[in-house]
Amino acid sequence: MNVVLLSGGVGGARFARGVQAALAPGELTVIGNVGDDVKVLGLHVSPDLDSVLYALAGLNDEERGWGRAGETWNALASASAWGGEDWFRLGDLDLGLHLVRTQGLAAGRALSEVTADLAAAAGLATRIVPATDDRLRTRVVTPAGTFGFQEWFVGRGHRDEVDAVRFEGARLAEPAPAAVAALEQADAILIAPSNPYVSIQPILAVAELRAAIAGRRVRCVAVSPLIGGRAVKGPADRMLSRMAGGTLPRHVAGCYGGLIDALAIDDADATADAGVETVVTSTRMHDLDASRRLAEVALEAAA
Amino acid sequence: MNVVLLSGGVGGARFARGVQAALAPGELTVIGNVGDDVKVLGLHVSPDLDSVLYALAGLNDEERGWGRAGETWNALASASAWGGEDWFRLGDLDLGLHLVRTQGLAAGRALSEVTADLAAAAGLATRIVPATDDRLRTRVVTPAGTFGFQEWFVGRGHRDEVDAVRFEGARLAEPAPAAVAALEQADAILIAPSNPYVSIQPILAVAELRAAIAGRRVRCVAVSPLIGGRAVKGPADRMLSRMAGGTLPRHVAGCYGGLIDALAIDDADATADAGVETVVTSTRMHDLDASRRLAEVALEAAA
Repeated sequence: MNVVLLSGGVGGARFARGVQAALAPGELTVIGNVGDDVKVLGLHVSPDLDSVLYALAGLNDEERGWGRAGETWNALASASAWGGEDWFRLGDLDLGLHLVRTQGLAAGRALSEVTADLAAAAGLATRIVPATDDRLRTRVVTPAGTFGFQEWFVGRGHRDEVDAVRFEGARLAEPAPAAVAALEQADAILIAPSNPYVSIQPILAVAELRAAIAGRRVRCVAVSPLIGGRAVKGPADRMLSRMAGGTLPRHVAGCYGGLIDALAIDDADATADAGVETVVTSTRMHDLDASRRLAEVALEAAA
Repeated sequence: MNVVLLSGGVGGARFARGVQAALAPGELTVIGNVGDDVKVLGLHVSPDLDSVLYALAGLNDEERGWGRAGETWNALASASAWGGEDWFRLGDLDLGLHLVRTQGLAAGRALSEVTADLAAAAGLATRIVPATDDRLRTRVVTPAGTFGFQEWFVGRGHRDEVDAVRFEGARLAEPAPAAVAALEQADAILIAPSNPYVSIQPILAVAELRAAIAGRRVRCVAVSPLIGGRAVKGPADRMLSRMAGGTLPRHVAGCYGGLIDALAIDDADATADAGVETVVTSTRMHDLDASRRLAEVALEAAA
């Protein structure tokens, strides 16, 4: 069985770990968001790909919710003391990966090749594939101006309301070859409980990927990132309120019009009015077991 | 009083600290070797400039003899686990500096500008100036082949005997403007107890710097790196034996023919046959006081 999961960062990574646990080794391909990739201290940082990698490899910090367990922060403190930028928190262990990735890209390798090497180095059977090897960057339009994603999310603490989201470079972005191949061979497609606007839409902004999902011959099931109309973390609920007009399942489903066959929602959000088939379950992923159970429900709905 | 010191890495840095302590703030300019600069994990590392910077700022690890005190090694361990190179030991605190330097260079700034910023960030009144902003790299010719300096020194543990040393790029290298200016305004010139072949010669390989010293109107005093004919650390004695025919003061002085007015040597090496005026003193720099005393002797000889 081949399963493709579209995933953003932390919430998606948590779900990805559940899907990986629910499947046999090698059955899962995660297509990851690169819209929030950012250059920090000259290094190419791919926060969402790394969240997935760290979670799948069991290297993530469960308590902090992002980055690596056992992390230290000495290089960043040093860089800051020497006059370097320090607005984006990069731990020492994390930096090791960014150095290797940046060196690979500088040598002319594609992001998807470098990412495949990293997954292999972690011993993963799951494939992690960036949506595109090209430069695609999420930009956030707010009343205070238009910002790069990380500038808004980290730099400004995502305090500005969002009027629109744009994907710079999307029109010219080719999908990563492995992403297309995975969708062609998929027996089921899942969309992680990630922020629809800034985690999943940047993947769907690659026209060929959207077309492959729109023209799918297998089922596609999304998991809502909201519980009781609230985001577990981050600004998804505020963005849905402002841009979709609400935080009900139909507002989430509306983000995926024509692309999903069912939406998995939390018991707290049960409704007959989602505009799409719903699967009602507990979507709270407080541990790996809970993530796996949620994955099993989503996989069953996608079967 | 304006003093210029030509310096290599660890031994030179230790002496530089003594000279800085012996002078009033702002009187010292250190012209540093860049021949052993190296790209590691995509970062521009300038080991000798950094040794001087760390020593002058009191950030150096006295016990280990190189790098920073309180150093940790997590980023390198991580990079290694992800498949990155790990032959060159970069600590986390050290990495912070290399990230800032590399980003500055990538933005088009000259190495001397970036270095001046780093010294300013450390609050130094002493100026640290690379011999050149251009690419000048030391290559070591050995019976086993010709190697880049760090490849030989670190990668091969400088086990190969050295037949000759070459300075790639030296013919086209312009001196850093601040190095020329400092030599023009110098009231005294010192050469640190560094390895003549791979620490000082790469500075003198920049034709305009050599010419400025050869045509000096002030005294120039070198301090021998040997004590009792032995290097305190590193391969200077083996290199002198093989390439100069011995490790006596005259062999050291021979490396600086026409460029020095006196050679400071250790009591253990006292001789009437140095081929140049000698100053006999204790040259062992076991602490800052000893370094300052040695600096005072050298400065007096240069007065």
